[in-house]
Amino acid sequence: MSELTLAKANAIIAAAFAKAQDAKMKPLSVAVLDAGGHLIAFQKQDGSSMLRFEIASGKAYGALAVGMGSRWLDTIAKERPHFMEGLNAVSGGRIVPVPGGVLIRTASGALLGAVGITGDTSDNDELAAISGIEAAGFDAVAG
Amino acid sequence: MSELTLAKANAIIAAAFAKAQDAKMKPLSVAVLDAGGHLIAFQKQDGSSMLRFEIASGKAYGALAVGMGSRWLDTIAKERPHFMEGLNAVSGGRIVPVPGGVLIRTASGALLGAVGITGDTSDNDELAAISGIEAAGFDAVAG
Amino acid sequence: MSELTLAKANAIIAAAFAKAQDAKMKPLSVAVLDAGGHLIAFQKQDGSSMLRFEIASGKAYGALAVGMGSRWLDTIAKERPHFMEGLNAVSGGRIVPVPGGVLIRTASGALLGAVGITGDTSDNDELAAISGIEAAGFDAVAG
Amino acid sequence: MSELTLAKANAIIAAAFAKAQDAKMKPLSVAVLDAGGHLIAFQKQDGSSMLRFEIASGKAYGALAVGMGSRWLDTIAKERPHFMEGLNAVSGGRIVPVPGGVLIRTASGALLGAVGITGDTSDNDELAAISGIEAAGFDAVAG
Repeated sequence: MSELTLAKANAIIAAAFAKAQDAKMKPLSVAVLDAGGHLIAFQKQDGSSMLRFEIASGKAYGALAVGMGSRWLDTIAKERPHFMEGLNAVSGGRIVPVPGGVLIRTASGALLGAVGITGDTSDNDELAAISGIEAAGFDAVAG
Repeated sequence: MSELTLAKANAIIAAAFAKAQDAKMKPLSVAVLDAGGHLIAFQKQDGSSMLRFEIASGKAYGALAVGMGSRWLDTIAKERPHFMEGLNAVSGGRIVPVPGGVLIRTASGALLGAVGITGDTSDNDELAAISGIEAAGFDAVAG
Repeated sequence: MSELTLAKANAIIAAAFAKAQDAKMKPLSVAVLDAGGHLIAFQKQDGSSMLRFEIASGKAYGALAVGMGSRWLDTIAKERPHFMEGLNAVSGGRIVPVPGGVLIRTASGALLGAVGITGDTSDNDELAAISGIEAAGFDAVAG
Repeated sequence: MSELTLAKANAIIAAAFAKAQDAKMKPLSVAVLDAGGHLIAFQKQDGSSMLRFEIASGKAYGALAVGMGSRWLDTIAKERPHFMEGLNAVSGGRIVPVPGGVLIRTASGALLGAVGITGDTSDNDELAAISGIEAAGFDAVAG
């Protein structure tokens, strides 16, 4: 099944939360965006701080913007900060360029959307996103 | 239990979808915001159009802005369109002033947040929101 | 004394709240801006809804924008809505064009700032603003 | 009493000003925001410069955004400037990431809001915020 349905998006979130619980992560917020950058599903665990939806979405949106996981944006932001600033400007200020935004692909490479996670360290956020995507039967592209 | 936890937010969404199925409504999008206007949970059913998250959130945000259900904003927008335009301007363009944004209150009247629903007629959107809120054990304020 | 000091701004707010209590108004939010449109003091009474600061400020800012009380903007918005829309656009979306934004002037006509109030009817909001300004020894310009 | 009422917010501001006077600080501006980032009360002392409301609010808003005192944002901004820029972008440009934004918590750890102060050095701004919060009977989280 290659479509990113609501059921699949919810499955991604549930699996990401399960991974977080296993690894004793802090409360997470998980956003699932379709390939056009539009929100399908979002959940914020109890105890999360105020702006977590914007951060989670900003990681996923940034990944979709350039067709790479947001870990790549993190590198670019360090090497060419003016590029990242320009990218954020033309996006209308919608990008958070740190790890935790991971592309969702089919086995054949078709882009379905992206997951953005925030709440723990950026590395753990990314781990939870990859776990969620793979548990739902898709390929994850983090870097 | 009077807190609007993620579990309660998910229960509201599930009950709203159940109501929509019973009443043969079109695919819905449901946003649950806390009392400060920040997203706790969102789900968009398959077959929904592109900007449904923004519309659902905009109804809930508008309800919280003035402390009334978004049906009240719908009336104000007709009677005093310049007030509604000004309100939308100072909100940063975050309000959709039509029915379907419903306040979530405890039995004792404490404001916990708001639900915004879009996808069917505004009246049906509001019905689904009320059903969801009441099924989760809270009071709904639509008008 | 012709300056709009913090002590004077606080006196305006206190007198507006006293007037509201006498007249059994709903909880009010009161913003006092200087002649440059910058906030000096603000207070929101318990039980007010979410966006009251933005609304109160938007009334006062609008009054300062054109050098008239926001009641005048209310009239203009009805007669020439495109003018009000343009004004709001060029202000960066900072104007709420309904009564309740009142200019603060010295006896000799010097402009010191504006008060914006929201929470009850627009007419009552304006009454409270006028009371507050006059109690602090200034002239109020509402229309 | 665990709620952040207007009376409590005013008490925080009065105590912060008292601390500033004792320590011979420059004129301060103090914003008190609720847990959803919405303004409850603000006061700017005479002799302050133009944009002090935006700076004070921006410190408090930033603290609430991530659930840490704004001193933490100051560190992040130095170590990972692209993360801070992204966070500011998705917040709509509402964050000033320097010390002086301090969370307000109950003794049992419930988040009630945040205080943002500007006018003196960032370290002194933060000291005044902590003094104000503790004088009102709450716990302060600065880092």
